[in-house]
Amino acid sequence: MGAIDEVLAANDAFYAAHEARDIDAMRVVWERTDRVVCVHPGWPILRGWPAVEESWRRIFSGVGRNQFILTNQSIEVGSNLAWVTLEENLVDRGETHAVAATNVFGFAAERWRLVAHHGSSVLAVLG
Amino acid sequence: MGAIDEVLAANDAFYAAHEARDIDAMRVVWERTDRVVCVHPGWPILRGWPAVEESWRRIFSGVGRNQFILTNQSIEVGSNLAWVTLEENLVDRGETHAVAATNVFGFAAERWRLVAHHGSSVLAVLG
Repeated sequence: MGAIDEVLAANDAFYAAHEARDIDAMRVVWERTDRVVCVHPGWPILRGWPAVEESWRRIFSGVGRNQFILTNQSIEVGSNLAWVTLEENLVDRGETHAVAATNVFGFAAERWRLVAHHGSSVLAVLG
Repeated sequence: MGAIDEVLAANDAFYAAHEARDIDAMRVVWERTDRVVCVHPGWPILRGWPAVEESWRRIFSGVGRNQFILTNQSIEVGSNLAWVTLEENLVDRGETHAVAATNVFGFAAERWRLVAHHGSSVLAVLG
């Protein structure tokens, strides 16, 4: 499997963990170091795996389900970093809500792991 | 100058161009290729330099001034990609508005240039 496919698989695993609300799967997806960063829509920057893990535990303990339709995805792979941008179309209680996301992956110990996730709600389509 | 300082200088140049509303300076900061991506707060994903440039022209032609106080900055540099996260505290008409930002830089032709910018409004401080 080439690097692009490996990063895409890691990105898919991130959304699978999110949909399943599976904190153990999320632990495998993330690098779990001090350098990891997560920005949920509307949230301030969270730094370091302990803060990021706590945020996912909080999100997974909330009400509702999360089901994503991923669209408009692009990927760029460097030698030890890669970044993916896409739109997360969240389907929740019959409504669809679009979130623009940037995901950065780092290659270490023979694996691509998520080092930064930034999501932001898309509020309007430009005229 | 080491890679970290070079990326920080490129990041500072991005905000200087933004504050100055200087599209020519913005052209120098960005990679100006098809792979560049920009997500302004609340906006959908813009892909490719022409769309990104048009968005900056639109923003620079709007009312108001943009003055930033940059805080909570961190940087990670790989061999040909780097990413910076920080909070842009926009001071506009006496009010401060926080935007969480992720900036990805790519190294090509002996220079670090911006390849992705993602900004999102911070709506609430977590309790």
